[in-house]
Amino acid sequence: MAASDNTSSGLFRFLLQMGDNCLILAHRNSEWCGHGPALEEDIAVANISLDLIGQTQLWLGLAGEVEGAGRSADDLAYLRDAFDFHNLLLLERPNKDYGLTLMRQFLFDAWHLPMLKGLMESTDKRIAEIAEKCVKEVAYHLERSTDLIIRLGDGSTESHRRMQASLDELWSYTGEMFEFDDLEPSLVSSGVVPEAAGIAEAWNKHVSAALKLATLKIPDSDFVRRGGKNGIHSEHLGFLLAEMQFLQRAYPGAAW
Amino acid sequence: MAASDNTSSGLFRFLLQMGDNCLILAHRNSEWCGHGPALEEDIAVANISLDLIGQTQLWLGLAGEVEGAGRSADDLAYLRDAFDFHNLLLLERPNKDYGLTLMRQFLFDAWHLPMLKGLMESTDKRIAEIAEKCVKEVAYHLERSTDLIIRLGDGSTESHRRMQASLDELWSYTGEMFEFDDLEPSLVSSGVVPEAAGIAEAWNKHVSAALKLATLKIPDSDFVRRGGKNGIHSEHLGFLLAEMQFLQRAYPGAAW
Repeated sequence: MAASDNTSSGLFRFLLQMGDNCLILAHRNSEWCGHGPALEEDIAVANISLDLIGQTQLWLGLAGEVEGAGRSADDLAYLRDAFDFHNLLLLERPNKDYGLTLMRQFLFDAWHLPMLKGLMESTDKRIAEIAEKCVKEVAYHLERSTDLIIRLGDGSTESHRRMQASLDELWSYTGEMFEFDDLEPSLVSSGVVPEAAGIAEAWNKHVSAALKLATLKIPDSDFVRRGGKNGIHSEHLGFLLAEMQFLQRAYPGAAW
Repeated sequence: MAASDNTSSGLFRFLLQMGDNCLILAHRNSEWCGHGPALEEDIAVANISLDLIGQTQLWLGLAGEVEGAGRSADDLAYLRDAFDFHNLLLLERPNKDYGLTLMRQFLFDAWHLPMLKGLMESTDKRIAEIAEKCVKEVAYHLERSTDLIIRLGDGSTESHRRMQASLDELWSYTGEMFEFDDLEPSLVSSGVVPEAAGIAEAWNKHVSAALKLATLKIPDSDFVRRGGKNGIHSEHLGFLLAEMQFLQRAYPGAAW
């Protein structure tokens, strides 16, 4: 039936958004592996990548199940091209310096945690279970990234300058997080996905308090860059996928 | 017969070296497209890429023919992994700044031209024909890169500093050009490939004269980095191939 088809493809798309966010951020963070500014940070950023890859597996695994076409989480991760990815544009931004990497992580974590908390109440039990599994890791991610942006924002002149520049650069990418218009409306009305307004409120509260402590100034612009959630990406995603997918593309079906 | 097998696989490998050198340098140069320091240079570097891609097609086309396994130039370019590439390590170095890109081009061109002139006398007519087709383009490449390294070496304090730094960084990668030990000895003895000593002499003469005019100092080191010609590459080649091969890997058999 058309209605149920729409719902299942709407659900599929939402699950891809959740999984792709985790996967693309995990890959970007993994690029720091062996290049971190300090050993402790190198290990921390790699561990966060591993958490996010684990979460990707859960989201994309369920996405494949919902789609019902026999695609595994691996298939979805390694055999889609850029226009079929639904991650936020924020997460495909190049790492640049460590300040930008941390600011991106902070802005995402502050969305990720209330989103997962909302999803723990999902009327779809499978989603509620995944959210429950992920929420502890993400609570830690947010604690860590909040600590660090405060220490560096309210740190030396140079660290303050870099954190402010990172915030200025990334700010226009945050609005996309709260636009749920692209979602099948029934997903929200039936309680599968929480309302955007609640997530936005929690995000605003946490972010503005932390940025205040960090002595950082929120940019004075409402401009929102959008597209990622609908598969319209920057050129950066193509290069990221070329690297990330090389092994499966060059050696189809390769396994450990 | 074993002996003839060896000769044809030796020839195959030599043709891969010639083709891979052109292909990898062409790809590196193409990364400047739209990012050149001046419009004129942007166009020049893209044109050199196109010349080198044309030459790649000739060398790899013949390589596929000699191999006799039905692989086309495209197959060889897009469906081999790093350990099957035989280009010089010099050519897979990241672009860094434009000074390094030009110095790499100069050091390679100064080898490429006498090599092609030698190959024009090859006892293998197919090779002599390809060399004849390429030599005019490469004579122009060398003229251009020589002019530029002289102008920039003997230019401002900053341009001199960068050109000297580029020379220092790349010098240890030049020795590999003149090591023909990895080649089937019969290729040289039967006059298919010219002797290394003659190429080295021509290279030394041109390079030392140009560097003198450029007021650049030849590094005082005999250390030779080797491996590329035998398929032992730096990590940079893997990333380059991931980008270069993405389309054919993701869409096998795709054509215009």
